[in-house]
Amino acid sequence: MTSSPIERTVFVVSDSTGITAETFSNSVLSQFAQFEFQAVRIPFIDTIEKAQAVADRINQCAQEQGQQPLVFSTLVDPKMAHIIGAANCTFLDLFGAFVRHIERALGVKSSRSVGRSHSGGMSKRYNNRIEAINFSLAHDDGQYVNGLEQADVILVGVSRCGKTPTSLYLAMQYAVKAANYPLIPEDFQRGTLPATLAPYRKKIFGLSIHPDRLSEVRNERRPDSKYASVEQCRMEVAEAERLMRMEGIPWLSTTTKSIEEISTKILDDVGLDRRSY
Amino acid sequence: MTSSPIERTVFVVSDSTGITAETFSNSVLSQFAQFEFQAVRIPFIDTIEKAQAVADRINQCAQEQGQQPLVFSTLVDPKMAHIIGAANCTFLDLFGAFVRHIERALGVKSSRSVGRSHSGGMSKRYNNRIEAINFSLAHDDGQYVNGLEQADVILVGVSRCGKTPTSLYLAMQYAVKAANYPLIPEDFQRGTLPATLAPYRKKIFGLSIHPDRLSEVRNERRPDSKYASVEQCRMEVAEAERLMRMEGIPWLSTTTKSIEEISTKILDDVGLDRRSY
Repeated sequence: MTSSPIERTVFVVSDSTGITAETFSNSVLSQFAQFEFQAVRIPFIDTIEKAQAVADRINQCAQEQGQQPLVFSTLVDPKMAHIIGAANCTFLDLFGAFVRHIERALGVKSSRSVGRSHSGGMSKRYNNRIEAINFSLAHDDGQYVNGLEQADVILVGVSRCGKTPTSLYLAMQYAVKAANYPLIPEDFQRGTLPATLAPYRKKIFGLSIHPDRLSEVRNERRPDSKYASVEQCRMEVAEAERLMRMEGIPWLSTTTKSIEEISTKILDDVGLDRRSY
Repeated sequence: MTSSPIERTVFVVSDSTGITAETFSNSVLSQFAQFEFQAVRIPFIDTIEKAQAVADRINQCAQEQGQQPLVFSTLVDPKMAHIIGAANCTFLDLFGAFVRHIERALGVKSSRSVGRSHSGGMSKRYNNRIEAINFSLAHDDGQYVNGLEQADVILVGVSRCGKTPTSLYLAMQYAVKAANYPLIPEDFQRGTLPATLAPYRKKIFGLSIHPDRLSEVRNERRPDSKYASVEQCRMEVAEAERLMRMEGIPWLSTTTKSIEEISTKILDDVGLDRRSY
């Protein structure tokens, strides 16, 4: 009935960072577009005392606003979860809702140990991620071509089509060593891939972008330059797509996709095995 | 009873990337350490036909293995979720489990629209993230000091203590413009912060690390160098911590923490408002 969004407070409570719970809550709450949610993330709740303090905060919020806040929790410890659940709120227990179901399916009790899901800074998987980030940084924008044989994937595309953030995301999220290499007018004149890349054809993946969007992005960096002009962008994109088609390189358009979506599609397409998972 | 881990197949099915569902499933399943889970992520399931194909795959897996796989789903469309749920599996419906509860709390029906949670490549929030990544890259390792006034946070610490991956994570996950600046022996001799940083004291946050761990990390990069020696690392860390104490800079140790944990603690400590959320 009303056109201005209705405000609701959302608490995200976790014994760890709360990042997963917050991402999940954003995703579910996006289905209620008529509301404007004010999220309060409360991480590292790992004692009964801290849980009690959060419950007090939730109760105070409920009283002040005259309505129950939504509370997403990934607390593993059932005592702490119970304390939060007893507060004046709509309690959404992400961990508890599934762990019993899984216990039944597997025929065992869960360890219910706080901190188990945090690999910390010393695990193999963590070291792989850091190594991949360093690799992707060193091999950003073709600046360093030694070691390309170690790359899991090499992204190519015109300047500012999304190669750098995608490479970094692949490294950070998936421990994938992602190099990236720009396609520039010299490549289009020659009509072939840069010679440096020729031995690695199988791991090359292309990114493209709509010329109008590319022009927007480039204009932010170098306003009113030839580099940012729609004509130049149109030419470069057309040439890059022609080159990728000729060389048989798979590619996708980044225009309306997030880094997460682009990265997921690349992993699928290149058939990269997920590591350490 | 048996000491070798029991294998179980886990499907993660999503109409989007499945990244949230997969992170969540890893976290919950880490509570069942006696099992070894083989995760199969199946993203972009956005038609009835695709959902039916996934159900067939799940049924085949159940038959071949003689046991029901676990299936985590974030499918928004109830028809698609129903198709997967009817397969021979333990169905864990992350979306369905909470959406009804939230509908009751808010007194409205959800839009149940697929794709709503994906902001795509054009939203304000997405642009802020990309801008932050570019900023953090340009201001990595003190390489570019212009524009530090735009930084949300400036990380300082000795070489290889974790500044770069943390800066990039803050940018990518939280759209936080995180610069980083190394503390080097010259700073310790002078006994003050680099002059460049003096105007921005309030947004400076320090990272430290145990000298043994630092020596390990540096040895991977430059084996058997003075730079990587335990003595050198011990000296640099002690001096950096002394400097940070004297200058009143808040800091934390990265030794046993993941990038996610470090970043969350920094956000908490610096009191950075979460943007666009």
